[in-house]
Amino acid sequence: MQIHQTTGQDGGWSRRAAILAGIGSIGALAGGTALLRTSTPGAARSSSEPGPQSPNSHTPANVSGDAPSQLLTPGNEKIAILLYPGFTALDVVGPHHVFINMVGAQVRLVAQTMEPVPSDTGFSMTPNATLDQVVAPQTLLLVPGGTTGTLDAIENPKIMAFLKTHGATAQWVGSVCTGSVLLAAAGLLHGYRATSHWLTRDVLRAGGAIPVAERYVEDRNRVTGAGVSAGIDFGLHLVKKWRGTTYAKGVQMFMEYDPRPPFDSGSPGSPAAEPAMVEMLRAMHEPFAQQATQLVKSTFAP
Amino acid sequence: MQIHQTTGQDGGWSRRAAILAGIGSIGALAGGTALLRTSTPGAARSSSEPGPQSPNSHTPANVSGDAPSQLLTPGNEKIAILLYPGFTALDVVGPHHVFINMVGAQVRLVAQTMEPVPSDTGFSMTPNATLDQVVAPQTLLLVPGGTTGTLDAIENPKIMAFLKTHGATAQWVGSVCTGSVLLAAAGLLHGYRATSHWLTRDVLRAGGAIPVAERYVEDRNRVTGAGVSAGIDFGLHLVKKWRGTTYAKGVQMFMEYDPRPPFDSGSPGSPAAEPAMVEMLRAMHEPFAQQATQLVKSTFAP
Repeated sequence: MQIHQTTGQDGGWSRRAAILAGIGSIGALAGGTALLRTSTPGAARSSSEPGPQSPNSHTPANVSGDAPSQLLTPGNEKIAILLYPGFTALDVVGPHHVFINMVGAQVRLVAQTMEPVPSDTGFSMTPNATLDQVVAPQTLLLVPGGTTGTLDAIENPKIMAFLKTHGATAQWVGSVCTGSVLLAAAGLLHGYRATSHWLTRDVLRAGGAIPVAERYVEDRNRVTGAGVSAGIDFGLHLVKKWRGTTYAKGVQMFMEYDPRPPFDSGSPGSPAAEPAMVEMLRAMHEPFAQQATQLVKSTFAP
Repeated sequence: MQIHQTTGQDGGWSRRAAILAGIGSIGALAGGTALLRTSTPGAARSSSEPGPQSPNSHTPANVSGDAPSQLLTPGNEKIAILLYPGFTALDVVGPHHVFINMVGAQVRLVAQTMEPVPSDTGFSMTPNATLDQVVAPQTLLLVPGGTTGTLDAIENPKIMAFLKTHGATAQWVGSVCTGSVLLAAAGLLHGYRATSHWLTRDVLRAGGAIPVAERYVEDRNRVTGAGVSAGIDFGLHLVKKWRGTTYAKGVQMFMEYDPRPPFDSGSPGSPAAEPAMVEMLRAMHEPFAQQATQLVKSTFAP
């Protein structure tokens, strides 16, 4: 279940315009129109396209109280989530789901072209804009992880130029999982405390970062998350910063994020983690970590 | 970061064939070849395509011990996750990410056609197979939720026929979020304890189900999850059933699923839930719940 915009522009899948479901309907109540986001299947939204927010503004909503009616106040965050071939889909979809619940925010998946981008798990996702269409400054530039695709992205001059340009101007720069390896290669973590997937955390040193073993690490305007699922946690953390605690709690409740993992073995230091498993995974990924370190070293110029 | 298959069939994004990253490399170690899954970007995998598992078998891997080396043993589960216009992407991508880590499993996104299917949050995902290509019996038939798209799916005869056919033969039938409303409409929850997103849990009564307020509910071969993020939890629960505890814990550690929500407000009954927020969300969704109830009533024929 997810917020729903009823624009009437679609081919039938949102034809029940009378049903405004989810937090999207709060926008409708507040502004008389569904204003959350573009939901036209497959449609690109150009950065210059008129929208509820000013395209040149990135001022977060002003949060003045903690009442549920706060959800009625639209904001104007501009969030660009990078897609590159081989990205890990859950790194993207977790925080995307969190952010899309912010009424008025512009949340876009951006890629080199408008073609569907292959994830590392056998399906592709369609972007909303090309890299060239992203206008600085963004409220958040977010980079997902991957494995060999992430290393390929380091060697892609267009992606690295995009990261450097928007990394220098965005209000917040964030990553999930090995996305921080890309940030490090782009010189965006030099001197910052940061984290990554536990298997690649130390790779960040090659980019001048200080690796930290936390779920997500905030240092000035950098927010880096641990592996894969950490994007949901720090997504809610950012919503709290932008919209306040009540709003973030409302998003959490609407997506029913009340995790009940069947085991307490999500990190190497977890109580139920099996040391033999940790060591096996670490040994398997040592070659990847080494290659990533070399690539970051050769790309990063402090 | 995700398991990675290096087939050499791609256009460059996995060109570092020397790097076998993630649990995928366990398969390579065990069988001398990367055998996890199709990872060719955008490619369909026909159900009759030769693979590491027999296409007519759905016998789970035989789990005989609890050593990490269990991860070396490929299984042959066949998992079909339904995509329909307006599905919620996180309902799909969460459990998909869990299941794709099972070496040897066939995990496919299935839809009416091979065209990208629009989610309810502004992007589309590409399926791996059409409904017609799915061969019974599947190990798991999994149905994601949505809002108006889910109601549209109830009125789609091809989707309902697919659910009835494979729901009657699959070893397990599951849903995330309002996906259980679709299962109820198809008559697949009649007499079963089941759950749904907390806003639509009572809708299930219209299909003869017994609503239960739990994170996920297992009743015989039905496993229904609560809202959105619950799919990750019960995905790991199913991996435990199929591959054993150590395997499931390994998957959890590899995806670093060590959730740290910034608030304890993920469910209406959570300690930090704000009653006013719960009531507002409930009131907003009452029309949707009523329409869903009517549709299930008129579609479900016990």
